[in-house]
Amino acid sequence: MIETKHIVSSFDNDLETIQALVMRMGGLVEEALRDASMALETRDAELAERVRQGDHAIDELDELVKTDTAKVLALRSPSATDLRTVLTVISISNSLERCGDLAKNIAKRVPILVDSGMVEDNRSSLRRMARHVGEMLSDSLDSYIHRDVDRANDIVLRDEDADHMYNVIFRSLLTHMMEDPRNITAGMHLHFIAKNIERIGDHATAIAEQTMYLVTGNLPDEDRPKRDLTEAGTAQADG
Amino acid sequence: MIETKHIVSSFDNDLETIQALVMRMGGLVEEALRDASMALETRDAELAERVRQGDHAIDELDELVKTDTAKVLALRSPSATDLRTVLTVISISNSLERCGDLAKNIAKRVPILVDSGMVEDNRSSLRRMARHVGEMLSDSLDSYIHRDVDRANDIVLRDEDADHMYNVIFRSLLTHMMEDPRNITAGMHLHFIAKNIERIGDHATAIAEQTMYLVTGNLPDEDRPKRDLTEAGTAQADG
Repeated sequence: MIETKHIVSSFDNDLETIQALVMRMGGLVEEALRDASMALETRDAELAERVRQGDHAIDELDELVKTDTAKVLALRSPSATDLRTVLTVISISNSLERCGDLAKNIAKRVPILVDSGMVEDNRSSLRRMARHVGEMLSDSLDSYIHRDVDRANDIVLRDEDADHMYNVIFRSLLTHMMEDPRNITAGMHLHFIAKNIERIGDHATAIAEQTMYLVTGNLPDEDRPKRDLTEAGTAQADG
Repeated sequence: MIETKHIVSSFDNDLETIQALVMRMGGLVEEALRDASMALETRDAELAERVRQGDHAIDELDELVKTDTAKVLALRSPSATDLRTVLTVISISNSLERCGDLAKNIAKRVPILVDSGMVEDNRSSLRRMARHVGEMLSDSLDSYIHRDVDRANDIVLRDEDADHMYNVIFRSLLTHMMEDPRNITAGMHLHFIAKNIERIGDHATAIAEQTMYLVTGNLPDEDRPKRDLTEAGTAQADG
């Protein structure tokens, strides 16, 4: 019995170490999104470059999580809930690594946009969207750590707001581009940025869904309302 | 000894079953990309709708792979190479599921574009890019099944061509949009489609890299040449 107990508690220790890595990743990703958004708003190419460089640290943590989870699987052979937890951690780390890439890709566009008035015009809506999605990400990690299904559910709903914000920005960009063809290049890049922010919201939602899966064993229905209206042709009304 | 042999061969059987699921997923994803690209080219909204519906089957296979790999991990507790193989399969299935989503998202834009002359103008370049990326995907799965590092390496290089094709399309779209503001809405959607095709190429590359990791234990350098020149401001020359 003592032997069993020892194994169980070793597993818990290993898992706590890995979870700490994932939370550290989460912190870095939130910072990267905040900085990328700030760099865009203040047209700070240096800050954008720091975001690009900083992505290496996120990738390294993801590698470390992959190595450590593989070790835990090999050494502890967890079963049932413990195994599900390890697989959830791998999935969350994967989502965070992708969010880091998305923030990096936003930062990469900043130097192209430093001279653009289009940034000025869309400043507040992009800032609000980035903040909204950053909070979703932070809360999705909280929901995982506390195994809080209600909070996880809330994030799925908040993703609809993120989708709505994206649609508003998309239409605004279209209007600006049609008013003045000199806005077209900047508009294409800003659309790319808005879409990347929206996708970080999708990843936060995926993390929340992993929490729900971990606690309840079920994923929510796949066909939850999707509000990217640009797909449904609504945006065409502007055309 | 007989007992050990029995366990090993059971693991191999389980793995083969899971790999067959992944290959089936790969086939469905290639078909989805081909059909989405064809639906765009021939403005076939019905075919596009079938691609959207077909994504459920891909998602279900991904769920099955997740469940089956969890079972194998729990029951067989594979170590060393076997464990690495299982983790690789999870990662490949994940990449394919995302490719399915990307193909679905391409299909979703088709109904918006049925009346657009812009599709006509970019028809052949989009078709070539989709075919190139579809072949990369198919070969990346072959490289995995045959543990063929040379072929995997080749795919990483071919991704540069995919990036180049994307850049050419991006510049062509910009030019069309600037020539006639009525092209702007379609241009935004076609840019989204081109970017999604390019990202399927990134996933094929990720699958090839998983093969290299599985065989050699190393991932290639992260800083391989990246040719999305729209990020580097080259495309601005058109602005």
